[in-house]
Amino acid sequence: MTKVRVGVAGYGTIGMRLADGAAKQQDMELVGVADLAPTLAIRALHEAGMPYKLFLVDPARKPEFDALGIPVAGTFDEMLEQVDVVLDAAPAGIGAKNKALYTRHGVKAIFQGGEKNEIADVFFHGYANYEKGLGQSFLKLTSCNTTGLIRAVDAIDRLVGVERVAITIIRRVADPGDTHRGLVDLLKVDPVPSHQAVDLMHVMPHVKATGLLVHTPVTHGHIINIVATPKRSVSREAILETFRAHPRMRVVRIADGFDSNASLFKYARDLGNKRGDMYEIGVWEECVAFSGPDIMFAINIPQEAVTIPETIDGVRACMCMQTDRLEAVGLTNKYLGLKAR
Amino acid sequence: MTKVRVGVAGYGTIGMRLADGAAKQQDMELVGVADLAPTLAIRALHEAGMPYKLFLVDPARKPEFDALGIPVAGTFDEMLEQVDVVLDAAPAGIGAKNKALYTRHGVKAIFQGGEKNEIADVFFHGYANYEKGLGQSFLKLTSCNTTGLIRAVDAIDRLVGVERVAITIIRRVADPGDTHRGLVDLLKVDPVPSHQAVDLMHVMPHVKATGLLVHTPVTHGHIINIVATPKRSVSREAILETFRAHPRMRVVRIADGFDSNASLFKYARDLGNKRGDMYEIGVWEECVAFSGPDIMFAINIPQEAVTIPETIDGVRACMCMQTDRLEAVGLTNKYLGLKAR
Amino acid sequence: MTKVRVGVAGYGTIGMRLADGAAKQQDMELVGVADLAPTLAIRALHEAGMPYKLFLVDPARKPEFDALGIPVAGTFDEMLEQVDVVLDAAPAGIGAKNKALYTRHGVKAIFQGGEKNEIADVFFHGYANYEKGLGQSFLKLTSCNTTGLIRAVDAIDRLVGVERVAITIIRRVADPGDTHRGLVDLLKVDPVPSHQAVDLMHVMPHVKATGLLVHTPVTHGHIINIVATPKRSVSREAILETFRAHPRMRVVRIADGFDSNASLFKYARDLGNKRGDMYEIGVWEECVAFSGPDIMFAINIPQEAVTIPETIDGVRACMCMQTDRLEAVGLTNKYLGLKAR
Amino acid sequence: MTKVRVGVAGYGTIGMRLADGAAKQQDMELVGVADLAPTLAIRALHEAGMPYKLFLVDPARKPEFDALGIPVAGTFDEMLEQVDVVLDAAPAGIGAKNKALYTRHGVKAIFQGGEKNEIADVFFHGYANYEKGLGQSFLKLTSCNTTGLIRAVDAIDRLVGVERVAITIIRRVADPGDTHRGLVDLLKVDPVPSHQAVDLMHVMPHVKATGLLVHTPVTHGHIINIVATPKRSVSREAILETFRAHPRMRVVRIADGFDSNASLFKYARDLGNKRGDMYEIGVWEECVAFSGPDIMFAINIPQEAVTIPETIDGVRACMCMQTDRLEAVGLTNKYLGLKAR
Repeated sequence: MTKVRVGVAGYGTIGMRLADGAAKQQDMELVGVADLAPTLAIRALHEAGMPYKLFLVDPARKPEFDALGIPVAGTFDEMLEQVDVVLDAAPAGIGAKNKALYTRHGVKAIFQGGEKNEIADVFFHGYANYEKGLGQSFLKLTSCNTTGLIRAVDAIDRLVGVERVAITIIRRVADPGDTHRGLVDLLKVDPVPSHQAVDLMHVMPHVKATGLLVHTPVTHGHIINIVATPKRSVSREAILETFRAHPRMRVVRIADGFDSNASLFKYARDLGNKRGDMYEIGVWEECVAFSGPDIMFAINIPQEAVTIPETIDGVRACMCMQTDRLEAVGLTNKYLGLKAR
Repeated sequence: MTKVRVGVAGYGTIGMRLADGAAKQQDMELVGVADLAPTLAIRALHEAGMPYKLFLVDPARKPEFDALGIPVAGTFDEMLEQVDVVLDAAPAGIGAKNKALYTRHGVKAIFQGGEKNEIADVFFHGYANYEKGLGQSFLKLTSCNTTGLIRAVDAIDRLVGVERVAITIIRRVADPGDTHRGLVDLLKVDPVPSHQAVDLMHVMPHVKATGLLVHTPVTHGHIINIVATPKRSVSREAILETFRAHPRMRVVRIADGFDSNASLFKYARDLGNKRGDMYEIGVWEECVAFSGPDIMFAINIPQEAVTIPETIDGVRACMCMQTDRLEAVGLTNKYLGLKAR
Repeated sequence: MTKVRVGVAGYGTIGMRLADGAAKQQDMELVGVADLAPTLAIRALHEAGMPYKLFLVDPARKPEFDALGIPVAGTFDEMLEQVDVVLDAAPAGIGAKNKALYTRHGVKAIFQGGEKNEIADVFFHGYANYEKGLGQSFLKLTSCNTTGLIRAVDAIDRLVGVERVAITIIRRVADPGDTHRGLVDLLKVDPVPSHQAVDLMHVMPHVKATGLLVHTPVTHGHIINIVATPKRSVSREAILETFRAHPRMRVVRIADGFDSNASLFKYARDLGNKRGDMYEIGVWEECVAFSGPDIMFAINIPQEAVTIPETIDGVRACMCMQTDRLEAVGLTNKYLGLKAR
Repeated sequence: MTKVRVGVAGYGTIGMRLADGAAKQQDMELVGVADLAPTLAIRALHEAGMPYKLFLVDPARKPEFDALGIPVAGTFDEMLEQVDVVLDAAPAGIGAKNKALYTRHGVKAIFQGGEKNEIADVFFHGYANYEKGLGQSFLKLTSCNTTGLIRAVDAIDRLVGVERVAITIIRRVADPGDTHRGLVDLLKVDPVPSHQAVDLMHVMPHVKATGLLVHTPVTHGHIINIVATPKRSVSREAILETFRAHPRMRVVRIADGFDSNASLFKYARDLGNKRGDMYEIGVWEECVAFSGPDIMFAINIPQEAVTIPETIDGVRACMCMQTDRLEAVGLTNKYLGLKAR
């Protein structure tokens, strides 16, 4: 079998995890990663023995890499000649510039949520609208919150239909180690509706959605509380069973010690997951309840890694590796070690 | 007119504000405050010139006060002989012990939300069930979150009827300067339903409620996002008008700079409010929206001062100072400087 | 006696406190404050009844103020015609532009620490180099940390001489309510030496200084730990007595409950100080110790208000209101209610 | 060669890392770990495939483990029969109780810093006083801060002699995911001297030490600023060379992006280190400076993992595996992958 050749543009928080995720897919080949400067992430790649080949966005800066003894495999252009599809994790706005380059090289690309919707042919989510991505040249992934949110809403929607959702997003404002963003001792409020609700309606146009976004001074995972109005009545246990059967959801219990977003991060570290990453969204069993006919439940979004599976799904879709949605996401899950619990 | 004589038991975060609030009521006389030890709050009272008389819970500790030059007006028992009603703001659990003392002295008492419901004849809220408190001996106030929540839900309920609410409470875990409680870089989740939803149903038994409580590492005000199902349809503007007309609510705009819970605290400081306190709950205009027929809106709960007005209402109720609900809360509001904006 | 006429440019965190401080000086007249837009601070001024007259930096924006019913006393230029000296608390960088205006109007000005040193004739501190400010046209105050630091070092220097200091500044990164700056769950480190050490040497050129600055995610007061090498040996008690005798220092005890920077803020709120402000730096009695011959002690810098007294001193200096340093700072202290404890 | 058989008591934050560290030593055999309940850490061990055998402190609770399908290798007593030395990482205070058990079984033990000094024959640090641990039955490790502090001070002491140190410890108050400890928006101050200064003098009795401890609301690493008075003058470059040559120190540069304690944590995650752990203390190159003759420098203490190497050294000492200090620490370093950079 010929492997699909994948490159990653931008070796930051998302890009490094996309590289990890692509490298795990036995039917894909990670050609390498491209970046601009010898950042700490690149230095760590070097100190770790260069598991991934590095291509330079700006060849003029090669001396900086040479001075540090960091081996360089070629230029960004050279990487593009060797790949079928690029996972673009460049800083927001750069992806739009890169698109011209991808077009010129005739490679497909999957952009992350920071880019504008117009950049892509499809606003994509592996579980919710896989079929729309089939054979397309340019996909844009939903953002971290929206990706996790849609996972859960799509699961209920396929079970009993969802008419509308009202969500409260309690958002982390920075990633661990990010010294450029932050808040101190305050909860910042954005106007309603948040973009995540709007984006959900874009990907799942048959569902109405609104939501409030509150920024909080934490780094380990967003929490979303969802009030979903189902089309048919459903039992709490049926919902929990659906969530438990979802390889990208992890139902946990407060009673077991999972009493915060950070307890999921700690658990992932203790599992030995690389970087302490978790692909699954968490669902607190004790927080699944009803408000009249509405289902209320809370999920945890591990913002650093949550979009990786759906991005890999995007490769499968745009390259037509699998035409069946469940077959595609199933393979992604298998190679990422995700399974129902 | 004979003024109702009020004493405060416990000069902590709530007690000092109850004293401030009672002292402002022209038809009440603040006899004094009682406490156990020369805490920082007591020292500040002293440095500020003893605007309130101090009574000692434990007369054996008088030498500690003498050594600091803090004048003492008598014992807790002596204070109880001079008052009609006690506002009990002792640490949670102590109020239950104090109750025997109040019974012995034949004084009424109003307990704060930290005590168990059984301590009181009525679980009280000035706006929602004033009439139930009339002439009772012992009232218990709702907690800070529940007090503010009920203000808003009661306002909508009186406008169009409320069938049920699903709430998300984003809770501050400590008050400014509290070194005994805290969280760092995490969002802690409690099982559903939170006690605030349960308490709301106790005070407003015709409304169904459930809710999620998430603890966040901040000190300035809880935020509650509420999804309320009304009995009759209503316009967004009618809701906003109702909120604007409520003297204990303050409708603010993100566009004006009120973009966080702390911006309300800062504004109260800049107003020159004592301690930077605010009695009103905040409502963000841009966060009042609909989810289908449901009303979604977000409020800010200034936890240190929010229960003061309803506690003063309690004095009016239990002492039968006014039998009409709106007359009673109106007087409280007038003396506290609260008015529709 | 003719009062010195003072205006304040920029009604932000510092400017509003400069206005409060100037208004308290019985030998000064606060002509008013100038600002650009109807910010929350201006709205609070309005809601509080306009205790200070407001002048507009940009007259074209008057309709915005009119629409809110905020009375305007005139333009910034008109204010400058009525004042002898301006306390410039405009955003960093704007002061430099304003200077031309002040020169044109023939008014003196005192700039805050955010401006470059070149803006002023003297880098000024009321206690450390009052005499240098006498009759000058333009003074620049030291920043909040440096102002408090110099207070303490100057006090020891006048007692026994100080040869050098090595300081560790544990800095708050944002003020309460500031949604534009912040850090989450990290301690950010700046290269040595910090500007505060360099600035100290500028104002006290006979002392050597170096220091580390660590940014922390808190809002209530910087803490500086100082290792000072004295020229002569001195007892711990003599140091404490010197600190206790300093009207702008407040020696507190952890044992009494002053166990954090925020406990000082809370105490100031409980004192009823406007905005909960404190002009004094705190000194923890239990943290005054020796390392060999060196004195080690920790101070708390209430960043919002700490520079107010020294700025007022600056008015006295540049206007030659008093030629004697102690007479000048003594009057400032008297009117601000500061005294030895 | 017969391997030294090691057991770990208490599979918490420290215990799990001691197990990882011991398992990496090719001349040691990790017999297993013992704990009380099926905590999240134990569940993660199970989900990760039980790389370490688990022994039960309380056999009566075996059904809880059985219900979860967690295999149990035996009881704590049975583990003690199979080991030569126990690394005791039980909660503070439990170690003292365990000691009787160890004595009864005739096994040696190394306790962590939470226990009282009296529990052990020697207060141990692998680099500073290895020889004192030789052949002893019970060692107690220095705490995380003290372990890292002594590494750096010992390095300078061996270079030029250290007369005294004055330290400022900026302490993290909780570990990631710890919902039981915390502070919000404040810097908490402890009386001088901190226990770390006292402990340093215990291990290095020829050095005088004092220090201030300030608790900050962060989770990723303490920062200590050290003012060290050397016995002989030394160049900045010689100090940096000494630090760079130390396998348990990592000299980093702010200019490269290491601008916070969390950037070191992030780097360790990106390196792929298990749990994102780092054994080395960080030293910021730009923060090594002089204050007169004194050396000032700042170090980062990764509190979760920093004591692991010195604890392993303790095994070597008490079991007399190596009698030479440098040979012993060199082997520990080799097996942990630590080397001069």
